[in-house]
Amino acid sequence: MPNAKKISKSPSSTVVLLSGGLDSATCLYLAMNDYEKVYALSFNYGQRHKVELRSAKKLAKLVGAEHYIAKIQTGLFQGSSLTDPKIKVPKNALKKHLDKKEIPNTYVPGRNILFLSYALSFAESRNCESIYIGVNALDYSGYPDCRPDFIRAYQSMIGKGTKAGVEGQPVRLLAPLMKLGKTEIVQLGNSLGVPYEHTFSCYDPDPKTGKACGKCDSCILRKKALSVSLK
Amino acid sequence: MPNAKKISKSPSSTVVLLSGGLDSATCLYLAMNDYEKVYALSFNYGQRHKVELRSAKKLAKLVGAEHYIAKIQTGLFQGSSLTDPKIKVPKNALKKHLDKKEIPNTYVPGRNILFLSYALSFAESRNCESIYIGVNALDYSGYPDCRPDFIRAYQSMIGKGTKAGVEGQPVRLLAPLMKLGKTEIVQLGNSLGVPYEHTFSCYDPDPKTGKACGKCDSCILRKKALSVSLK
Repeated sequence: MPNAKKISKSPSSTVVLLSGGLDSATCLYLAMNDYEKVYALSFNYGQRHKVELRSAKKLAKLVGAEHYIAKIQTGLFQGSSLTDPKIKVPKNALKKHLDKKEIPNTYVPGRNILFLSYALSFAESRNCESIYIGVNALDYSGYPDCRPDFIRAYQSMIGKGTKAGVEGQPVRLLAPLMKLGKTEIVQLGNSLGVPYEHTFSCYDPDPKTGKACGKCDSCILRKKALSVSLK
Repeated sequence: MPNAKKISKSPSSTVVLLSGGLDSATCLYLAMNDYEKVYALSFNYGQRHKVELRSAKKLAKLVGAEHYIAKIQTGLFQGSSLTDPKIKVPKNALKKHLDKKEIPNTYVPGRNILFLSYALSFAESRNCESIYIGVNALDYSGYPDCRPDFIRAYQSMIGKGTKAGVEGQPVRLLAPLMKLGKTEIVQLGNSLGVPYEHTFSCYDPDPKTGKACGKCDSCILRKKALSVSLK
């Protein structure tokens, strides 16, 4: 594959945080376009929508990325409806969350920080040049760990706290969807051939059938993206 | 126990990163002095000196801290003599490392970042006020993730990437040993009653007996600390 990013130190490899949803799938295809070797990293952290991992696995297989699913001990994350079955996932509430600038209870404490830190150790260990994370701060639920300020701060921290960083070649954090709306993301993905039918976005799928609820923030954002772009 | 740090939002609790060595043991006793509830967090990451976890367990039990050992999948960290049995741990080389400003091969890619990120999710999930990390940048091997610049950058990142952070009450990163030499650390610990005989520092213990090698950077630093302060 073409590769414009080769630098002397790193082989042309990267790590993609792959949940199995729309955004991370788009990142995976972007990464495949730009790097010779792509590692995909997913997490089993006791999420109620663990079914997303099937999509992650399928997507990684389709593109030929080396896929790892890291296990985070159940019980680490608390106070989130995504990991605590006693807390209800909000339904039809995206507009309210955004209007009130309210961080919804689907926020998982420090989740992206932990996922990025796993990816960082993985990437530095294998001399990868970068990490892709599919955050975007336009069509989202207002999570703090999806914003440009956070990505900049994490990048800066990589520069100070890693060997590669202090030696002047920090692992680069790539958030190529940051400033795109959901429909733009899907347009981009369509141009790359992302098979969105294999992605999964719902936070609260039916425990028996695995079918998406259609009403959580993530389902609402997905509908917005796909109804426009896949017509 | 006395508690000067109580703030309205958090109950008076903290998380201590506890390896089982001198520094983290000292932090544990400092934390016990300052907080009502102390969680101790250790990691099994495939380190060749896994025997340190016994010390961590013992220390946590002695003070009555709630202790967790998180498992990091073996194979995540690569290229370090602490996790790869094929790479030799340098012996009698501390002076050389420091003179040449060389980061030794005992550096584990992104290890403190990952450990702090675990602790951060743990702390924010349980509404803890802070995290203790026993890094110090005087008597050390020159690791980037033990320096003040790194701690400041990580703290700044917490402020941007967590709910508690953007709401103005970020989990605080405490590195109380940062500017102390090893002998000062042990003097401080002695004043707190730290049972240093139960700590373990060696990077490369005998696989059968678990006895310290006496020659790795960590053993040399330990000797410097204890020979002065425990005479």
